Amino acid sequence: MSSRLLTGIGELVTWDEERPVRHDAALVLADGAVTWVGDAAEAPAADDVLDVDGAAVVPGFVDSHSHLVFAGDRAAEFEARMAGRPYAAGGIRTTVAATRAAGDADLDANVTRLVEEMRCQGTTTVEIKSGYGLTVDDEARSLAIAARHTDETTYLGAHVVPDGAQPEAYVALVTGAMLDACAPHARWIDVFCEDGAFGVDAARAVLTAGRDAGLGMRVHANQLSYGPGVRLACELGAAAVDHCTYLTDDDVDALAASDTVAGLLPGVEFSTRHPYPDARRLLDAGATVALASDCNPGSSYTSSIPLCLALAVREMGMTPYEALRAATLGGAASLRRDDVGHLRVGARADLAILDAPSAVHLAYRPGVPLVARTLVGGRSSALTGAAARP
Amino acid sequence: MSSRLLTGIGELVTWDEERPVRHDAALVLADGAVTWVGDAAEAPAADDVLDVDGAAVVPGFVDSHSHLVFAGDRAAEFEARMAGRPYAAGGIRTTVAATRAAGDADLDANVTRLVEEMRCQGTTTVEIKSGYGLTVDDEARSLAIAARHTDETTYLGAHVVPDGAQPEAYVALVTGAMLDACAPHARWIDVFCEDGAFGVDAARAVLTAGRDAGLGMRVHANQLSYGPGVRLACELGAAAVDHCTYLTDDDVDALAASDTVAGLLPGVEFSTRHPYPDARRLLDAGATVALASDCNPGSSYTSSIPLCLALAVREMGMTPYEALRAATLGGAASLRRDDVGHLRVGARADLAILDAPSAVHLAYRPGVPLVARTLVGGRSSALTGAAARP
Ligand SMILES: [Zn+2]
Ligand SMILES: [Zn+2]
Repeated sequence: MSSRLLTGIGELVTWDEERPVRHDAALVLADGAVTWVGDAAEAPAADDVLDVDGAAVVPGFVDSHSHLVFAGDRAAEFEARMAGRPYAAGGIRTTVAATRAAGDADLDANVTRLVEEMRCQGTTTVEIKSGYGLTVDDEARSLAIAARHTDETTYLGAHVVPDGAQPEAYVALVTGAMLDACAPHARWIDVFCEDGAFGVDAARAVLTAGRDAGLGMRVHANQLSYGPGVRLACELGAAAVDHCTYLTDDDVDALAASDTVAGLLPGVEFSTRHPYPDARRLLDAGATVALASDCNPGSSYTSSIPLCLALAVREMGMTPYEALRAATLGGAASLRRDDVGHLRVGARADLAILDAPSAVHLAYRPGVPLVARTLVGGRSSALTGAAARP
Repeated sequence: MSSRLLTGIGELVTWDEERPVRHDAALVLADGAVTWVGDAAEAPAADDVLDVDGAAVVPGFVDSHSHLVFAGDRAAEFEARMAGRPYAAGGIRTTVAATRAAGDADLDANVTRLVEEMRCQGTTTVEIKSGYGLTVDDEARSLAIAARHTDETTYLGAHVVPDGAQPEAYVALVTGAMLDACAPHARWIDVFCEDGAFGVDAARAVLTAGRDAGLGMRVHANQLSYGPGVRLACELGAAAVDHCTYLTDDDVDALAASDTVAGLLPGVEFSTRHPYPDARRLLDAGATVALASDCNPGSSYTSSIPLCLALAVREMGMTPYEALRAATLGGAASLRRDDVGHLRVGARADLAILDAPSAVHLAYRPGVPLVARTLVGGRSSALTGAAARP
């Protein structure tokens, strides 16, 4: 068993209950896990030593919400939206058409590109959804491709009702043959419960069918208006309900009283010019909050958790450490994982070494690529990413 | 004369009057300049060929406003401000004390670090101000250090009145002995004309003294409230007046009728939670607009022009190409340069190759490090930057 000592850590965020943030610290990694945490002055010997020279070290980001299996982009739609111009050719259906038309290799290359981008920006765990196939075969192949890149795959046949389909028949497909084809490749099921997508009865049918097939439950809800999605998620014990932009007091109470994590996706609000969700209100009520990218080509084509942290601090009432906690421990809670999102002994050796002396810099220095190096399972992945290109 | 052909350019932004943006293009660089622009299919032979495989190529960013000569940071002040907590130890004076106490080598290393960060993010020309010395010797050494990194050095002795100084006596120093010591190292003079800094009479005295010593004029004004700074800058024919957050109709008319460029610095508004300047209003009135980082440890510790572009589109009513133009041609106009900020024949070979098929992605993909490679004078600088670290 080869061990590695990271020392000279100016600020180490472990999320240990007693000392969540420590200074002048060191960390030993072995067999892909954290095996020792303590003061640099007391560090044990190891096979290999990496002195990070005062840098901050934080848990790798856990991005609990992304849509990376797609083809094409929607830059023209973005441009029109920002200019306030109508754009008839837009929407999820554009991406569905492009994704169905793409070959497996192209879809896989797109996921590879975006996962590498994420790695370079400190993300070490990423959830990836289907949802741009919307046929039995296209959803199943999207999930099979996603499963090459992550264990956290989510079946989102219930993203929208595809063109030409009748809503009730489509829900029957999503909960029937499509579920049968997708469940072997998926850990989670998800549904977009919102006006224009799926109503509360359809959402309940989708979620319970997934649960009965052995999948965990996740929900997209309350993005564009108030609605029943958040309360449904809490009632069913879903792991996560994401967006949470429009919440009543009852919704907030339901989240606070449940284990359902509220996933906030500020990249969406940034790129659609909608109002941001109120993270402060959720935290003050006692809800568990996750921050995620929602990386997708329509409403949030960012892969940058550091940008999400900066937006959460600027726009959503979070402190820098609350935002970091939401993007690490919060993401892990959203995925019901206890091996990632922290750096206590026993955690996976997934971490980001910053070009900065403290994690505050992630919000204090917005837009700056501050992740100097990302370790996944104790191994550096920096040289596989965009930063390594000639 | 060794020549280099860049070909396979999916989108090339030259700012040529007839074809500002072209597709399937190529570019020849020789002796540090652009020597040919045209369709990829008609490209001439060259000594060296770089096929960018459909990437977008844009002029290198011209960051016309930064404060890189300083020591220390103000992360704790940022954290307190974001939490709405008072923070007595903050402000420019904190950085002045740290800068005076620092050695030349440390100040130089700080500039090197930030210029490299900027290069990795596509900036190829940067203006650097003094203003954290505020003694004759400390201002002169700040400018001497800045001059090692850029030709665009700005003497900002009139940043604030330092602790212990009497305002009129300090203006006399700034326009007297300090000017004499600084002018040999500076191209520009600047003054912060705002309540709490320098009034309009003092600002006029500073600017005209600098002009008489052979320096070009720049102004910080109208950042925190309405005031006379913008009109003073236009009246005196200053090259730039930066911030421009609070503008009356008369201010906008004065800018539109002058050659004075309005520099907008959205990193400041992002990091201080102030309202953003209205770029749309300035563009519609016919003013020339620049976008710059204002990189400094207090109010805007970002070095990222791509973030500024994304904010300009999200918050300030600019289209993606208007924002790009402001951060390239606009920055060049602000510095009275015609050799940078565009890629017409004769321009310096300063450019950014994007990890994206169009420049729209700079706003469409906020926070993502999309600059794959930066060329300065035709040479790659990517390997000197943060991206190259192990
Ligand atoms: Zn989503
Ligand atoms: Zn400034």
